[in-house]
Amino acid sequence: MKKILNNPQHYVDEMLDGLCLAHPQLQRQGDDGRVIVRTGGPVPGKVGIVTGGGSGHLPVFLGYVGEGLLDACAVGNVFAGPRMDDCMTAMRAADGGAGVLQLYGNYGGDRMNFDMAAEMLELEGMAVASVRVADDVASAPAEQRDKRRGVAGLVFVYKAAGAKAAAGASLAEVAALARKAADAVRSIGVALTPCVVPESGKASFEIADSEVEFGMGIHGEPGIWRGPLKSADALVDEMLDHVLPELQLARGDRVTLLVNSLGATPLEELYILYRRARQVLDERGIVIAHPLVGRYATSMEMAGASLSVMKLDDELAGLLAAPADCPFWSVR
Amino acid sequence: MKKILNNPQHYVDEMLDGLCLAHPQLQRQGDDGRVIVRTGGPVPGKVGIVTGGGSGHLPVFLGYVGEGLLDACAVGNVFAGPRMDDCMTAMRAADGGAGVLQLYGNYGGDRMNFDMAAEMLELEGMAVASVRVADDVASAPAEQRDKRRGVAGLVFVYKAAGAKAAAGASLAEVAALARKAADAVRSIGVALTPCVVPESGKASFEIADSEVEFGMGIHGEPGIWRGPLKSADALVDEMLDHVLPELQLARGDRVTLLVNSLGATPLEELYILYRRARQVLDERGIVIAHPLVGRYATSMEMAGASLSVMKLDDELAGLLAAPADCPFWSVR
Repeated sequence: MKKILNNPQHYVDEMLDGLCLAHPQLQRQGDDGRVIVRTGGPVPGKVGIVTGGGSGHLPVFLGYVGEGLLDACAVGNVFAGPRMDDCMTAMRAADGGAGVLQLYGNYGGDRMNFDMAAEMLELEGMAVASVRVADDVASAPAEQRDKRRGVAGLVFVYKAAGAKAAAGASLAEVAALARKAADAVRSIGVALTPCVVPESGKASFEIADSEVEFGMGIHGEPGIWRGPLKSADALVDEMLDHVLPELQLARGDRVTLLVNSLGATPLEELYILYRRARQVLDERGIVIAHPLVGRYATSMEMAGASLSVMKLDDELAGLLAAPADCPFWSVR
Repeated sequence: MKKILNNPQHYVDEMLDGLCLAHPQLQRQGDDGRVIVRTGGPVPGKVGIVTGGGSGHLPVFLGYVGEGLLDACAVGNVFAGPRMDDCMTAMRAADGGAGVLQLYGNYGGDRMNFDMAAEMLELEGMAVASVRVADDVASAPAEQRDKRRGVAGLVFVYKAAGAKAAAGASLAEVAALARKAADAVRSIGVALTPCVVPESGKASFEIADSEVEFGMGIHGEPGIWRGPLKSADALVDEMLDHVLPELQLARGDRVTLLVNSLGATPLEELYILYRRARQVLDERGIVIAHPLVGRYATSMEMAGASLSVMKLDDELAGLLAAPADCPFWSVR
């Protein structure tokens, strides 16, 4: 876990500089440059969608600012929530006059700052709605879904809500759709190695060479069990055993599936995981539409993978298939 | 460097299964299923482009089979060349009646098998041309370019040749263009950690926790020097010092640039590298067009990065901008 960087204190800002230089459709805004917006300003009459969160998870969060997706993102330090001021700047940048949806992963710090930003801007007359995604089934039991963390399933909710907003829906409609999408997605991850937070220079947790942590969170939050690394197929079977029951799937139902690397785990292994997930869903008569395999929500160089499954109805399936374009994901 | 897999002997085939299940525009062919082709067969009247090489480098090689790119790929075991039979199967699958270009990285085993396959199929009447990409400046001096290895710069040559073929050029024209593109691209890599070859279970090389190998090849071939890890900016400066001189760039010239992760190195670090490369090229008055930042040619979970620079004329710039679509790269 060596890192290629300059001054660790400049890690986030140099990353943002490089990102906007490589992708001129993205721009830095705000007094600290910690807001990423689409070049060209808000789309008049369209509901704006903003997100935010800590750095170190590319493409999450800021990488999904783009056509048919998000309008702005407030960016924190590595694994730390964005400032309230940056949440407000993002919301102003996203506001095309039809209101703004805050759409982000369920973490305490992010929630506090987005809630305060919403209060401030509602006083100024902005119409604001908030939807938090809490898809990590390993982080709390089903009865306490509001205590669950948001992980990679967020990406599907971005896509569905972004397409709904692009189609001209009202703020109430986009928020209702985002809530439906958030309710339909579940995720679980396994971690094989930690990553190093640049500012501290320390590994996010420790784990033996032969071990896996099943259900671990993307910042190294404890999972369900830790033990010897199992085969890819055995991991998938157990992950799906945790993810599928809450979705109450029947034969003939459609889902979308994301097989996501936490960073170091290569595409080759993701396809081995996808193969098994497809086998299991085939056996149950469940159809996969619009699958994703790749690095969509990471923890820098952490090794490990997550599975996210979203139950689809016709509306969600249509929204996932709608055109979208950001530096890390293109649908056409 | 833990791996998520089942039987290491099934690593490649299970990966190929998962890949084709996730991306139904790709299909396995050949008696061993080790040829990846575009669903729907060859495009009548279009020059076919085939490639091939060892597994463990996704998206290279097979991942670039797609619209405006390649027609077929022969797939070897991890870090091992494809069989001659599979090279022939790939060529037959790519042959739309206008001939076939073999376009691959310069490695001995690959060359031998592609050469034999070309001889066999020429006897059957197929028109065949061959272009090898040898872009790794660290692997041999400029006077011995035919001894250099092919690395990530191959991706730009795929794109340019693929667009030329899609535009209806003849085999001779596509081959000449591919040669021009191969002559215009230079690459160099730095490695921070090895990767583990599944079949052997062993690391591809050893390196200390504080060290970098400058100029190392993607299979762990020795580089130019090994020493303490430098800052991102210092690495970029030294990498460009090796890459730029042979391209004989003047103020106002255009290049394209790929900042590529060898696997574990995260996007955040790639953008820090891109930022510095952009600064250096800006200072020299050189314009970057169509840059790529991401994982385009990897060694599974190896940490490290490479830079590839291609000097552009109007034709190459136009071909890079032409529409293309494969599971890992979309241009529109």
